[in-house]
Amino acid sequence: MNLILFSRDEVQAPLPRSDPRAQHLLHHLKRGRGERFDAGLIDGPRGKGWIEEFHSDRLQLNFVWENAIPPCSPLVLVVGLPRPQTARRILREAAAFGIEAILFFAADKGVASYRTSKLWAGNEYRQRLIEGAEQAFSTRLPQVALHDTLGEALAALPAGRDRIALDVYEAEASLSTLKTLQAEATLAVGPERGWAAGERDLLRQAGFRLAHLGDRVLRSDTACICGMSLVLAARGKL
Amino acid sequence: MNLILFSRDEVQAPLPRSDPRAQHLLHHLKRGRGERFDAGLIDGPRGKGWIEEFHSDRLQLNFVWENAIPPCSPLVLVVGLPRPQTARRILREAAAFGIEAILFFAADKGVASYRTSKLWAGNEYRQRLIEGAEQAFSTRLPQVALHDTLGEALAALPAGRDRIALDVYEAEASLSTLKTLQAEATLAVGPERGWAAGERDLLRQAGFRLAHLGDRVLRSDTACICGMSLVLAARGKL
Repeated sequence: MNLILFSRDEVQAPLPRSDPRAQHLLHHLKRGRGERFDAGLIDGPRGKGWIEEFHSDRLQLNFVWENAIPPCSPLVLVVGLPRPQTARRILREAAAFGIEAILFFAADKGVASYRTSKLWAGNEYRQRLIEGAEQAFSTRLPQVALHDTLGEALAALPAGRDRIALDVYEAEASLSTLKTLQAEATLAVGPERGWAAGERDLLRQAGFRLAHLGDRVLRSDTACICGMSLVLAARGKL
Repeated sequence: MNLILFSRDEVQAPLPRSDPRAQHLLHHLKRGRGERFDAGLIDGPRGKGWIEEFHSDRLQLNFVWENAIPPCSPLVLVVGLPRPQTARRILREAAAFGIEAILFFAADKGVASYRTSKLWAGNEYRQRLIEGAEQAFSTRLPQVALHDTLGEALAALPAGRDRIALDVYEAEASLSTLKTLQAEATLAVGPERGWAAGERDLLRQAGFRLAHLGDRVLRSDTACICGMSLVLAARGKL
């Protein structure tokens, strides 16, 4: 936790001592009354927080916020739903890179049970986003959606943008040599077992260029980090 | 395991059925007599293997190898020794990218106990390399060394090369805009708590340029993947 994030609701109310952020402030950062810590408002500005009052069951915090809201990185990820442990890392690292959105979809070659993981049942996926943003001193949480098919995910995408899909087998060029057409990009990363033929057709119909990362088959989470790095760097955002 | 790796010794001898590779061939790939699988010789060629004979306690394998040996990616990583779980990921992903070597060093702001982990006591670190290479269809295992200080690691580096160190605080430019001076590169990534002032001096004396990855503070393993991606892409190797 390099930055401690709060929602707008939370900054109005006292913070229960049982909250992991209160524990972090008291036992890890060891902040006394009035001592500043790095804080952020989710999807808002960064700033400084401090403990105003100590109570037996809660802390009364106060904040001062900067004026500027840090921008998102101009990227949407479309990802074949991977096993939960891999999805956790993708959520966390996508939030660290501060991208706009992640659209997961149940891929033809995916595994149906991945969707029933507890990661998606409650609030856990959001916790992974917060963890990544806090690590990176970012306040922006990517929007997250789960779609039943690639087609449904593509229909939900913002119009236009530079559309690129990673593919080991039918790529026209390497991602790093692909010409940047627009400042904003959408990057699609297949499921662990690769794209189905019908999914490749859908991608091409939707204007995606297929690109590879050399002849190496990277894990889904590594391909996402590598892909985000190259796409953002090509747009001067890294 | 996209590719099953063997050392030169191992391809001469029968494979015990208790070996995880035998289990993978029999129960996951379900190979019968003579049915081919993707194999690789560590630091040698790729090829095909097959089970020649089934015995109660072992498999007699046979192989046919390609002529060419896949090249390494022209990169050496120098990394402040992180917690073992992070080191495991760096080892695995560096092997997936097929880089030449990883030199870990006990950083001034590091944690001494990381070095006594069971990861480093026996063969486990090598297993993580094999796992990464197998994932990426690569046969090359990075050389791995543990040094007591950054100075000792720098003294062990190959001479020359493009030397770049990641640094959030005193970087002259972003890694993605840094001019490529040489085809072969050395990339230094600090420990989780950052470089000490003396370490920055050592890096500068050794000809390292300091570069950042934007204003985001990435985890060590993510910074390594992001850094490897950008350095290799800039050299046409990704």
